[in-house]
Amino acid sequence: MRSALYTGDSTIVVEERPPVPPTAGEVQIDVAYTGICGTDLHILHGAMDHRVRVPQTIGHEMSGRVADVGPGVAGLAVGTPVTVMPLRWCGTCPACLAGQHHICHRLDFIGIDSVGAMQQRWTVPADVVIPLPADLPLTHGALVEPTAVAVHDVRRSGLGAGEKAVVIGGGPIGVLIALVARSFDADVVLVEVDAQRRAIAQKLGIRTLDPVADDLAADVETWTGGAGAAVAFEVSGSAAGITTAVELLAVRGRLVVVGIHNQRREIDVFRFFWRELTMVGARVYQRDDYATAIDLLRAGKVGAQTLITHVEPLANAAAAFDLLRGGGNVMKVLIDCQETS
Amino acid sequence: MRSALYTGDSTIVVEERPPVPPTAGEVQIDVAYTGICGTDLHILHGAMDHRVRVPQTIGHEMSGRVADVGPGVAGLAVGTPVTVMPLRWCGTCPACLAGQHHICHRLDFIGIDSVGAMQQRWTVPADVVIPLPADLPLTHGALVEPTAVAVHDVRRSGLGAGEKAVVIGGGPIGVLIALVARSFDADVVLVEVDAQRRAIAQKLGIRTLDPVADDLAADVETWTGGAGAAVAFEVSGSAAGITTAVELLAVRGRLVVVGIHNQRREIDVFRFFWRELTMVGARVYQRDDYATAIDLLRAGKVGAQTLITHVEPLANAAAAFDLLRGGGNVMKVLIDCQETS
Repeated sequence: MRSALYTGDSTIVVEERPPVPPTAGEVQIDVAYTGICGTDLHILHGAMDHRVRVPQTIGHEMSGRVADVGPGVAGLAVGTPVTVMPLRWCGTCPACLAGQHHICHRLDFIGIDSVGAMQQRWTVPADVVIPLPADLPLTHGALVEPTAVAVHDVRRSGLGAGEKAVVIGGGPIGVLIALVARSFDADVVLVEVDAQRRAIAQKLGIRTLDPVADDLAADVETWTGGAGAAVAFEVSGSAAGITTAVELLAVRGRLVVVGIHNQRREIDVFRFFWRELTMVGARVYQRDDYATAIDLLRAGKVGAQTLITHVEPLANAAAAFDLLRGGGNVMKVLIDCQETS
Repeated sequence: MRSALYTGDSTIVVEERPPVPPTAGEVQIDVAYTGICGTDLHILHGAMDHRVRVPQTIGHEMSGRVADVGPGVAGLAVGTPVTVMPLRWCGTCPACLAGQHHICHRLDFIGIDSVGAMQQRWTVPADVVIPLPADLPLTHGALVEPTAVAVHDVRRSGLGAGEKAVVIGGGPIGVLIALVARSFDADVVLVEVDAQRRAIAQKLGIRTLDPVADDLAADVETWTGGAGAAVAFEVSGSAAGITTAVELLAVRGRLVVVGIHNQRREIDVFRFFWRELTMVGARVYQRDDYATAIDLLRAGKVGAQTLITHVEPLANAAAAFDLLRGGGNVMKVLIDCQETS
């Protein structure tokens, strides 16, 4: 079978590899589609070489069908459409004991810390496999994982119906947050510097602002009747994103840190005191977030058709990464891993 | 009557001034004691000259008895022991309309933005006057305001019984937070650099750590079984205080910003993401916090006797400020404003 491997030095190689037969408690999946995540790009750029053991198959946003099961696996018939929640926790650290398994001190993020889904057959522990509704297209099923991220982010914000939220950063996660927030009946505006990304968001009916050309402060002031936004999602990973979020928030506003900030950021802590602001970190997801993500995709609330701008065959995985790196009119790129492709 | 006025240029002057008779809706109070707050020291140092109109009587932590009432004031008989919640809000800004009057966009903090309590007779609107229990000593009554700050801070943290909390900064507010947290059945440690302040906290039964001599990370690691603290209160106003708090927090830990940070602080935002931390600002108090503060003082849970290290006559107000500025074996300094003193 074919497998796309990260071999270090910004390189993806597609090779023939023997599939791994499922042992006790494991499930082998015929992978249908694997999405390329921003984290996969970070891996390609070498930013996660302390976690990835090259050569390694990466990828963690996926859909497929059960191909085979090992001894002791029940309830997952061959052919069942599935996705994976790619987290394995230790069960014994303080985070796990407190019920926060998804932020386990020794979390194994499958596809980063261990072998991922960018291959034709993928063998994983049965407890990370999540069945998908039969009527959900498998292309859309590959969006369950990033949609669950967005659901988790929105839940962490405590966003309520009728509240006003600003999303800073309009990549796939930012757009998904805007869509999930809208499905929670919030009023949303998306701030994104790239015109083509703004155009995709607009196609999904999201109001957008350009942080360069538009006066964000004045817009939010008018939009919120002088109050400021109830919630801001920082998805850009930039210093400016944090500063802007803090400036736009209302009294008791909540800032959700979604983007990866690999350096310390200067924050106006006085404003946190003065307006009683809150900043919360949001990392991956919990089981409930997966369930909600599947419901939203099934109900057509996530605009999967518009978000998926490219589907490339597995043989062209390296080119698919280049496509995403190049920017432009691209949002979500899926790798088609099916045997027939 | 005598009044202590801030006249600018780090100067407090005590002068004879005519008392202000109460008009409709106002109450005149015979002030008993007025505490000197850290904010009063900031005023003395000129840091709040943009808000204080010199010469101005300052002071907002107080106790006294009703001396006279203007027309239309009911339920406040002459002689009633009282304190003041020194906040006046506009009632029409977005914060007020959202029910967050205490962080009104146009908040008048009485004693800073308008005339304060460091005088023998003080006239204020009736709606800021709060009766005190007859059996609460008036020295202790002057601690209601700072205790309400601590109650508000602890409430904003969501601290629960049995949780472990670190308080960074052991001035009066830090010690009060530790005492209030303990009264909520939390397990508390206080971090303070000054040995004499640590000694006062220890006298109140609070476990203390010295950030210079002690290994905070190792202590908290052992104390919390490797989890980290559930809550950290940053009361020092220092850059190091923020950094330390973020390092000591457990997964889903909450950092409460209490201290005044007059510059931006570099914050490890990635750790907020990684551990799903929360940072919340906490400013002044609400009515419920006053009620709880009075209950705690009456129940003897705040160690008022130990916290009040000095009581100085109003005539010596300038010297009382010097005492606090000098540091050393001093915690809360009260000004005795009674006619007989």
